[in-house]
Amino acid sequence: MHKRLFIPGPTEVPAEVLEQQAKPLIGHRPKEFTELYTGIIDKLQKFHSTEQWVTVLTASGTIFMDITGRALVKEKALCCVNGAFSKRCAETIRDCGKEIDILDVDWGYAIKPEMILEKLASGNYDTLSICHNETSTGVRNPIYEIGKAVKKEYPDIMYVIDSVSAMGGDKVEPEKIQCDLIYASTQKAYALPPGLAIGFVSEGALKRAEEVPDRGRYTDIKGIYDYWMKKQQTPSTPNVSLLYALDYQLDRMLKETAEGRYQRHVDMAKWTQDWAKKHFEMFPEPGYESLTVSTIKNTQGKNVGGLNKELAKRYYMISNGYGNLKEKTFRIGHMGEWTVADVQDVCKNIEEIWEL
Amino acid sequence: MHKRLFIPGPTEVPAEVLEQQAKPLIGHRPKEFTELYTGIIDKLQKFHSTEQWVTVLTASGTIFMDITGRALVKEKALCCVNGAFSKRCAETIRDCGKEIDILDVDWGYAIKPEMILEKLASGNYDTLSICHNETSTGVRNPIYEIGKAVKKEYPDIMYVIDSVSAMGGDKVEPEKIQCDLIYASTQKAYALPPGLAIGFVSEGALKRAEEVPDRGRYTDIKGIYDYWMKKQQTPSTPNVSLLYALDYQLDRMLKETAEGRYQRHVDMAKWTQDWAKKHFEMFPEPGYESLTVSTIKNTQGKNVGGLNKELAKRYYMISNGYGNLKEKTFRIGHMGEWTVADVQDVCKNIEEIWEL
Repeated sequence: MHKRLFIPGPTEVPAEVLEQQAKPLIGHRPKEFTELYTGIIDKLQKFHSTEQWVTVLTASGTIFMDITGRALVKEKALCCVNGAFSKRCAETIRDCGKEIDILDVDWGYAIKPEMILEKLASGNYDTLSICHNETSTGVRNPIYEIGKAVKKEYPDIMYVIDSVSAMGGDKVEPEKIQCDLIYASTQKAYALPPGLAIGFVSEGALKRAEEVPDRGRYTDIKGIYDYWMKKQQTPSTPNVSLLYALDYQLDRMLKETAEGRYQRHVDMAKWTQDWAKKHFEMFPEPGYESLTVSTIKNTQGKNVGGLNKELAKRYYMISNGYGNLKEKTFRIGHMGEWTVADVQDVCKNIEEIWEL
Repeated sequence: MHKRLFIPGPTEVPAEVLEQQAKPLIGHRPKEFTELYTGIIDKLQKFHSTEQWVTVLTASGTIFMDITGRALVKEKALCCVNGAFSKRCAETIRDCGKEIDILDVDWGYAIKPEMILEKLASGNYDTLSICHNETSTGVRNPIYEIGKAVKKEYPDIMYVIDSVSAMGGDKVEPEKIQCDLIYASTQKAYALPPGLAIGFVSEGALKRAEEVPDRGRYTDIKGIYDYWMKKQQTPSTPNVSLLYALDYQLDRMLKETAEGRYQRHVDMAKWTQDWAKKHFEMFPEPGYESLTVSTIKNTQGKNVGGLNKELAKRYYMISNGYGNLKEKTFRIGHMGEWTVADVQDVCKNIEEIWEL
């Protein structure tokens, strides 16, 4: 037995998917690798109903924050901040030497199109960054509505979305979102081990990159694209073992269908949040609750650390609140391969331990 | 059966090591991860007889080229180039927006201390980059002698070494080399799948990084160090599956001992190169032949592509020459877990196919 992870990543990975990583290696330059990699790209595009180019990088999702700072922001970005991970995006762009302005709301609240439009009108921004799903607060920002509003008035702005803890569970269709870069990591809703970052890149983003100097190598999204166009491979050595697992998992996901997978996440979120409201309150602003992680206000003043110790004995793990929200909130991750029955199971155990 | 890889990476990984990757995942913030990660750091320091800080990044080795450009070079680097990978280091530093001068010799030749000293005297360099083992040519540069000569006259210069295809097989003891950054990837002489980069970082390098602005996040070696000091973890999500395999493989390597592993690579190189000289000529300048990959001049005008097709039927794979050296040379990788008997076996098959 091992601890089953109901945390907002890494998530539980089915044994048959993990085992793909134990397959003998192939080189990353022969044709057999090209077949593996192009197959993955096709499947990702199919799952996300998109014709946008997508790339799989050997790195954590954070690499795309550096890519944003190095290859997309020309001079100045507007960074929407309503949690720890959107703050991280903003700081990374700044630490790449670009100017940033921050549009922030209190943790627990969502960022809405009208707030962004107002701020965009006030300055000369070339890039907009936002978090789809704030893992720290369980808030889901309305990325489709934002895309529609922003791109209508500012078609040339780069619209960059961190969807690390949503994509693969929540619905991500790049053309409909009208985004220029949307990215995730494999260890969240894709239900894979950590180690790969997946990013959908618009034609506009590739054009923009050409105008940004000093993009480096690992962060040069244009160079990565050019290599793909030339060889249908990656310019530096990829994690072949994890690509085996991704390829296998994408087959499973396509079998479930994107719609089926999305609906399952909707159902898990609804059940968990209804359960939470029976005993506690939800932390996010109503209507903006995440589909992949429920952040619950600890209105009963229960001991969250103690709960997790007891859950561990039963081979479960949930997450305490993030940073300053520790003990004030707790988080139940319901992403990847979990079902409503699994979430009911962990919540039943919480009820028993806390005598709810 | 699968193709056994006698290419200069990725290399053959023992099944028991691959299987470590199929273990259930743990989160990367709880104590159990700290235990795994600190154990790996201890083992790496022990294997390489060093007290230097070492970090394991979820990326290919290329990330350290970006780190050099982003966090170590202040203004101007002298880049030693004698093959494709040292050229890649130089270009990456340039593409990070730093000035470079190139010290180059013809492919097949080594770069020697006196060449570097002469060039260093001519300009105001703050960083020196070199490749330990040029995978494209099979040339091994004398990194210990260079360190001794350079650091005596220029103690403040950052001495950065790409040891991607050597470290873990050839001997790497950072203090004795007097280097500030030496790095490798897991898929070469460590005999693991690709996906992690290992780098030893001097105190001087950490001090230098403080003086370099705009280091970004994924490439901010100082930020990665600070996080390690605070939490003994990594600032972004690491590849846990591959860290399991690294941990396991380091135990195997320590059991063999660093000296034993080095001697096995010396023996494989000697046997392969003696064999090569019986039928062909070696490509590298005498005395500077790699311990991990033998690059052999195709003096008999044999068909290397055809050879690999025949070898594939027998479940072996070697490498053609790199770039312009295709068909003019061929490369036999003998790194990681292979033994002299394995190399003899693949060479016997080459003799049969080519009727040598």
